[in-house]
Amino acid sequence: MNSSPFTFESFLSGSCKAIRSSFLREILDIAGMSGIISFAGGLPNPDLFPVSQIRIALDQVMSDGGKSTLQYSGSQGYLPLREWIAGRYYKRFGIKVAPDNILITNGSQQALDLAGKLFLDPGDCILMEKPSYIGAIQAFSAYDIKMEQISLEHDGISITELKEKCRRCNPKFLYGIPNYQNPSGISYSEGKRLLLAEWLRTKKLPFIEDDPYSEIYFTKTNGIPVSFLLPEQCILTGSFSKMISPGIRTGWMLVPDKLKSYLLKAKQAADLHTNNIVQQLIYRFLVDNDVDMHLDRIRIHYHQQKETMLMLARHFLPQRTRFTNPDGGMFIWATLPDEFDTTELVKYAISEKVIFVPGKTFYVNGEGNHSMRLNFTSSSPDEMEDGMKRLRQAINLYMEHMKVKV
Amino acid sequence: MNSSPFTFESFLSGSCKAIRSSFLREILDIAGMSGIISFAGGLPNPDLFPVSQIRIALDQVMSDGGKSTLQYSGSQGYLPLREWIAGRYYKRFGIKVAPDNILITNGSQQALDLAGKLFLDPGDCILMEKPSYIGAIQAFSAYDIKMEQISLEHDGISITELKEKCRRCNPKFLYGIPNYQNPSGISYSEGKRLLLAEWLRTKKLPFIEDDPYSEIYFTKTNGIPVSFLLPEQCILTGSFSKMISPGIRTGWMLVPDKLKSYLLKAKQAADLHTNNIVQQLIYRFLVDNDVDMHLDRIRIHYHQQKETMLMLARHFLPQRTRFTNPDGGMFIWATLPDEFDTTELVKYAISEKVIFVPGKTFYVNGEGNHSMRLNFTSSSPDEMEDGMKRLRQAINLYMEHMKVKV
Repeated sequence: MNSSPFTFESFLSGSCKAIRSSFLREILDIAGMSGIISFAGGLPNPDLFPVSQIRIALDQVMSDGGKSTLQYSGSQGYLPLREWIAGRYYKRFGIKVAPDNILITNGSQQALDLAGKLFLDPGDCILMEKPSYIGAIQAFSAYDIKMEQISLEHDGISITELKEKCRRCNPKFLYGIPNYQNPSGISYSEGKRLLLAEWLRTKKLPFIEDDPYSEIYFTKTNGIPVSFLLPEQCILTGSFSKMISPGIRTGWMLVPDKLKSYLLKAKQAADLHTNNIVQQLIYRFLVDNDVDMHLDRIRIHYHQQKETMLMLARHFLPQRTRFTNPDGGMFIWATLPDEFDTTELVKYAISEKVIFVPGKTFYVNGEGNHSMRLNFTSSSPDEMEDGMKRLRQAINLYMEHMKVKV
Repeated sequence: MNSSPFTFESFLSGSCKAIRSSFLREILDIAGMSGIISFAGGLPNPDLFPVSQIRIALDQVMSDGGKSTLQYSGSQGYLPLREWIAGRYYKRFGIKVAPDNILITNGSQQALDLAGKLFLDPGDCILMEKPSYIGAIQAFSAYDIKMEQISLEHDGISITELKEKCRRCNPKFLYGIPNYQNPSGISYSEGKRLLLAEWLRTKKLPFIEDDPYSEIYFTKTNGIPVSFLLPEQCILTGSFSKMISPGIRTGWMLVPDKLKSYLLKAKQAADLHTNNIVQQLIYRFLVDNDVDMHLDRIRIHYHQQKETMLMLARHFLPQRTRFTNPDGGMFIWATLPDEFDTTELVKYAISEKVIFVPGKTFYVNGEGNHSMRLNFTSSSPDEMEDGMKRLRQAINLYMEHMKVKV
């Protein structure tokens, strides 16, 4: 019998030790500090939350459903809500999907975790965009796997690099965000979607298509999901976080027939089913309100916020900084001249009471040091201007201390 | 290039293939069929759901919190709710726990899944009671592990068998339900709790203590959680499913300091945070209502339901059937004479429009064939009597067809 004190260390799983911490979640504390202007979070603008409509919808749900709303319910999710989602795809893309192929999840974060449960064994390899969504990196890292990133070109993922990387590792799937990608803001062109679907078909590689910003477009609607070009090989996720509210933690997965029973078991094992009150609340909100007008309001507002942010960033950030100009979503990606290390710069920024997410956060191999992600949805124009001025001040101090000249 | 059609089979994880299906979830469809009397589910009695108080609490939450209720929030959960839980432990057991050691989960099912994420690698071994909770078997099976079951004696888990089985495999943890265990209804005696804590301390083995029925006692309060006897080695889970409503999917985990950061990352990776509206709703309900009176109502009702069910079962089930007589929770465990195979009997029962869960469901190795779990919370006395008469009829048909004489 060993007499050393008890420690959990030797009991922890390889997966648990492999889970990456989320820079974003960690800085939420800083971002929430009084006086800080945050370009860091991925928070929707709370002024656009339909608070009073939700209050009415909730009351309706409790008055209509009563007891049944509070009981255990099916693992797949509230059928009328799944029917609404299916109807929305038909309305938007003319594609018929069966509500039975939709599973309701706790936000699309859980969809990513369930995809991990379905496909990933320790040591497996997956492919994702470079840069990629930090929540996905975190969800998949919990399966103790290897991630390979594929460069994003201006019109989407690089097919050339995809072919090359796919030869090197034997990937379980490709994960990507074709619309207003987080963090880059890049969208796949129609041509790239077709090319990708064709390549995936030939390679017989599954695709996890993450689509949380689909409804948050600015000047034109987005292209058809790759999942509709290759339904038997793809999982498409969606979310009400940006359409309605992220605090309600409700999203969904659209999966091929072959995965349905596995996915249902994985959801049962994870948490039995998604919260019932909120599923019914969302459905009531969707049918009792003019959703398109609600979304148009968000689109117009975010579009204007993007324009303001981009104008200010062009004005205050160093010359030779390159920007993406997204037509939807919540983020601009800025790549500073090579002299700048944004992981260092963010420390200066925090002391000037402004914060962004350093590019490195979105890479699995330490790249991205010259880039930053700028969120444009959660600051007012005045805060944006103040924040950009502070960021300029941080840049000046950084240049002075680091003896950088641009 | 292989020209066979695409199939997901070769992409699925070992874990995904290992997830057991839940007999319970599968029979919910049958249990929900019109005319069926169900002793199968683990459903709380919906007549005891505080519908109108929840409706009021929800409206209050939306009126007080508004926008902030709908925004992303911290992964650990709503602080006032965690403080309430800590305060409740102090009130009940005189034990001080820090709200910072509590994480809010989507029901205790997610707590089990997160425990799996923390500890389990493929091929690991864990110990659990025999029989054990099917949701736990399902959650842990998703980690592609080996489960060893330890007999339950009338006063709790067999320490002798625990010692023996622990020598044979090298377990990552013991999982157990010391209060009104699901499915057996058995509770650990005070002496057994002390013995178990002492043995776990000597063995340096972590204990996952699942405690969803703790507040649903009948004649006397339950003993101290083993986790309070050995806090540095235990995870204690709790749930509002039986106290308030299961449809709200809210539970919690109490963990030692050493696990906090790992658990927080695991929760982030799984779904960022638990639904905000509902966490605030629960808190409002708890502080604006007399919780103890609400719980006393449940206790009195379930106690009476248990007495009725036990009386009827003794009357209608075969002689030599043995029953547990739980002092809380939701289930009676009946062990029929050896001539009966409950996995076969349930088919006769379904054709007579009554359903129970066959004992085998709660065993990992095919044992339990003579037992059944009877839920007493979700049927009225009249339904119970009708159901038991139908079950007797099913037993008669079974005996006739199987040429069983008792």
